Amino acid sequence: MDYMEEAIKEARKALKYGEVPVGAVIVKDDKIISRAYNLKERRNDVTAHAEVLAVREASKYINNWRLTGCSMYVTLEPCPMCAAAIVQSRLSKLYIGAPDIDSGACGSVINLVQNNYLNYWMDVKWQYNDDCSELLSEFFRTKRRKQ
Amino acid sequence: MDYMEEAIKEARKALKYGEVPVGAVIVKDDKIISRAYNLKERRNDVTAHAEVLAVREASKYINNWRLTGCSMYVTLEPCPMCAAAIVQSRLSKLYIGAPDIDSGACGSVINLVQNNYLNYWMDVKWQYNDDCSELLSEFFRTKRRKQ
Repeated sequence: MDYMEEAIKEARKALKYGEVPVGAVIVKDDKIISRAYNLKERRNDVTAHAEVLAVREASKYINNWRLTGCSMYVTLEPCPMCAAAIVQSRLSKLYIGAPDIDSGACGSVINLVQNNYLNYWMDVKWQYNDDCSELLSEFFRTKRRKQ
Repeated sequence: MDYMEEAIKEARKALKYGEVPVGAVIVKDDKIISRAYNLKERRNDVTAHAEVLAVREASKYINNWRLTGCSMYVTLEPCPMCAAAIVQSRLSKLYIGAPDIDSGACGSVINLVQNNYLNYWMDVKWQYNDDCSELLSEFFRTKRRKQ
């Protein structure tokens, strides 16, 4: 199964609701144990980014906040809040579909996932997928038209 | 009202439950609109730090994720996840009771609350209070004795 495609499916749901289209899935033993998309505006919750929601759902599922042995696939490079939540959750691997040059915290603006000062270190794989960035372009094009 | 004292009351609740004792309150127009303490272990949720819970509760209360005009009082310097959540929530002021030399993200290890690269900038006041750090020392002393 192409897990990044599953994350993209989640991002499409966010787009449908007028949210910044970001989606994430968490995989353990070749099974998706959580899936989420950005719900910040709908939930009026600044922490309701796809990654935070996916981490919380996965922890609920395995009844443990430690997500060791799990991988996250996310369509956009996580922001500082999400990057730190991901490292603290002890997720083993992070697959990223597109960079975020404005607020990406996995190397684009700052690096919190591989940071010696914080002792934050995890395995990150960039898995570029045009659909991830195209969804974001579509969102911002539509938003500009509405203004 | 001494709002840092109110945050300390929250931290004491965390200590009672065997959680790292950190507490936070959010104030708007001289009224506490949310109070929270660290519940990471009890909730099995790595994101259930006092600051994140307080931000979410305040947003629910005012029905808006934008906490402009609100201040947070927190007993310990926020970690990177919380610091980023605080800035993104647009809280106007952050009062911190004690530094965290291991993972503080308001200047001790990294600075996410005043960061030009991220365009993250907020008003931070250090309001040192011995009780804030004493609670943490007590927690770690007890923990060591149990080992």
